[in-house]
Amino acid sequence: MDTHSTSKTPITLLGLGDMGTALARAWLTAGHPLTVWNRTPERAEPLAGEGARAVATPAEAVASATGPVVLCLLDDASVGEVMDGTDLNGRDVVNLTTNTPAQAQQRARWAEERGARFLDGGIMAVPSMIGRPETGGYIFYSGDHALFERHREALAAPAGVKFVGKDPGHAALHDIALLSAMTGMFAGITHAFALVGPEKDLDQTRFATLLAEWIGAMSGAAHGIAAQLESGNYTEGVTSNLAMMTAANDTLLATAQDQSVDPRLLTPYMELMRHRVAQGHGDEGLAGTVGLLSSE
Amino acid sequence: MDTHSTSKTPITLLGLGDMGTALARAWLTAGHPLTVWNRTPERAEPLAGEGARAVATPAEAVASATGPVVLCLLDDASVGEVMDGTDLNGRDVVNLTTNTPAQAQQRARWAEERGARFLDGGIMAVPSMIGRPETGGYIFYSGDHALFERHREALAAPAGVKFVGKDPGHAALHDIALLSAMTGMFAGITHAFALVGPEKDLDQTRFATLLAEWIGAMSGAAHGIAAQLESGNYTEGVTSNLAMMTAANDTLLATAQDQSVDPRLLTPYMELMRHRVAQGHGDEGLAGTVGLLSSE
Ligand SMILES: NC(=O)c1ccc[n+]([C@@H]2O[C@H](COP(=O)([O-])OP(=O)(O)OC[C@H]3O[C@@H](n4cnc5c(N)ncnc54)[C@H](OP(=O)(O)O)[C@@H]3O)[C@@H](O)[C@H]2O)c1
Ligand SMILES: NC(=O)c1ccc[n+]([C@@H]2O[C@H](COP(=O)([O-])OP(=O)(O)OC[C@H]3O[C@@H](n4cnc5c(N)ncnc54)[C@H](OP(=O)(O)O)[C@@H]3O)[C@@H](O)[C@H]2O)c1
Repeated sequence: MDTHSTSKTPITLLGLGDMGTALARAWLTAGHPLTVWNRTPERAEPLAGEGARAVATPAEAVASATGPVVLCLLDDASVGEVMDGTDLNGRDVVNLTTNTPAQAQQRARWAEERGARFLDGGIMAVPSMIGRPETGGYIFYSGDHALFERHREALAAPAGVKFVGKDPGHAALHDIALLSAMTGMFAGITHAFALVGPEKDLDQTRFATLLAEWIGAMSGAAHGIAAQLESGNYTEGVTSNLAMMTAANDTLLATAQDQSVDPRLLTPYMELMRHRVAQGHGDEGLAGTVGLLSSE
Repeated sequence: MDTHSTSKTPITLLGLGDMGTALARAWLTAGHPLTVWNRTPERAEPLAGEGARAVATPAEAVASATGPVVLCLLDDASVGEVMDGTDLNGRDVVNLTTNTPAQAQQRARWAEERGARFLDGGIMAVPSMIGRPETGGYIFYSGDHALFERHREALAAPAGVKFVGKDPGHAALHDIALLSAMTGMFAGITHAFALVGPEKDLDQTRFATLLAEWIGAMSGAAHGIAAQLESGNYTEGVTSNLAMMTAANDTLLATAQDQSVDPRLLTPYMELMRHRVAQGHGDEGLAGTVGLLSSE
């Protein structure tokens, strides 16, 4: 260990799956002393060869931690199993395991009861984007803000960081909301490829470029929806109204039928638009459909 | 009419709704002699004041046309009504009315039977983007390529142009495919706003920026899907596999439930992913779900 690396915050990392391994390499590359543990010990071996200290049990890893204890396990249940029997008193726990906002809030209470500080994270990147800032991947953080600030430099080694609130559930809420929007987009893209797929003389690669550009350009609609939700005025600044979009939906459905494509990925949202129009709001933008999904 | 404008291709435009009026202004601004007709004649009056020549009937408009006859009407049925009784022999017809690929193909045959050349278009812009190249709006064209090339400069005045094939249905197919993908994205965005909506201390404007950035970045997944569809190898180059995404979907659904959000906009695509995993393809990317929508 050279004098340079000893000046960096030591990291203790539990979980060496695809994501944990990528995080481990990013911290090693950035010169952080790294202690690792994984249920299947073989996955720690290559990292040990790259300078990490591998330990045999979670209890040992936590007991020897002098910096943040980072968890990157499969799900919240595995966090419970792994941390059972460790002594968290006085520790800084950073949980990067994907979870729901409610699970993150429960984990924060669980950590507090054990005398630990707690920060929850949601990773907006795939493993290949970790340690490569140019890819734009980042991690949402929420919970203990002082903990975040104290370890900010170390946390920023694998990917960009965005602190989104003291409510420990907010990182997960942002994470899941973005993944949910992405799921809808993937559904739309899947329908689009199904429509053009049977056309023999249509270049899929060129179509993908048009599709990605269009989606990128139209994603800006999120700003208009947010502005309307904040003002409560759903007709202000509308350039494409629900009545016109509902009429266009008939052409989308007729095209799906002609191309023998099952429209089931699109129909639930078309129904929601139609429902809002039927409520007398054909002159609105999309913001009015948001409330129709909430049962509160 | 000055000497400059007389050198530009004269345009005949039928239909002066929101979109037709925007097209008319763009051609007038670019110096094209413009003849207009609209069912409700009052909508032609402001344009007549700006230099357009308004005529009383579609037959008169078509008979006097020396350049392209552009149609921007509500739907394909209105095109049939308006053009009934006009003499199309020897005319260049450019149909910018939104239609299905099959309707565009039928219109091409209809024009040919009447001795006309035919180009179909799909407008990827809202009226406020017309005549403003910096907005990135454009129009897909397909059909008679010689007609497109002959009038390329005139067609490019309102928005960018993209010729996507001699099959007259291809402009509509591209148009509808992109609108379909957008519908899925809007569904995902709507779900995301429903998730974060009840959080009082969460800034919707800031969230919209994160959402638009994320959607823009992830829209690149279309390239991977296209590459897999073209190669027929659905496991090549997979960084996020269906099995892992299906597991994550449970966290998305649990979060929706916790936030009292109806998951119906996302569940059909989640079902499709699960179905593909159940078929033994958990190691694939998304390409394998495309074929599940086609009944051919
Ligand atoms: N990969 C991505 O693209 C990505 C992106 C964003 C977020 N994430 C999140 O990052 C976390 C880790 O993902 P990953 O890709 O690394 O997953 P992975 O490759 O499937 O690895 C799972 C890890 O969890 C461990 N584990 C699972 N159950 C356990 C248990 N009961 N007790 C102890 N250890 C257990 C595994 O240990 P063994 O080695 O012993 O099986 C392994 O270290 C997940 O929450 C995931 O949602 C991943
Ligand atoms: N607006 C957009 O954002 C947008 C974007 C892309 C594509 N488009 C497409 O552009 C086309 C026109 O849209 P728009 O926004 O201009 O629609 P609009 O404002 O509703 O105008 C519809 C036009 O069609 C005419 N019309 C309707 N039925 C007719 C009939 N039976 N006979 C004669 N004329 C008839 C109307 O004449 P009257 O004035 O007499 O009613 C009016 O000129 C549509 O196909 C639309 O899908 C629009």
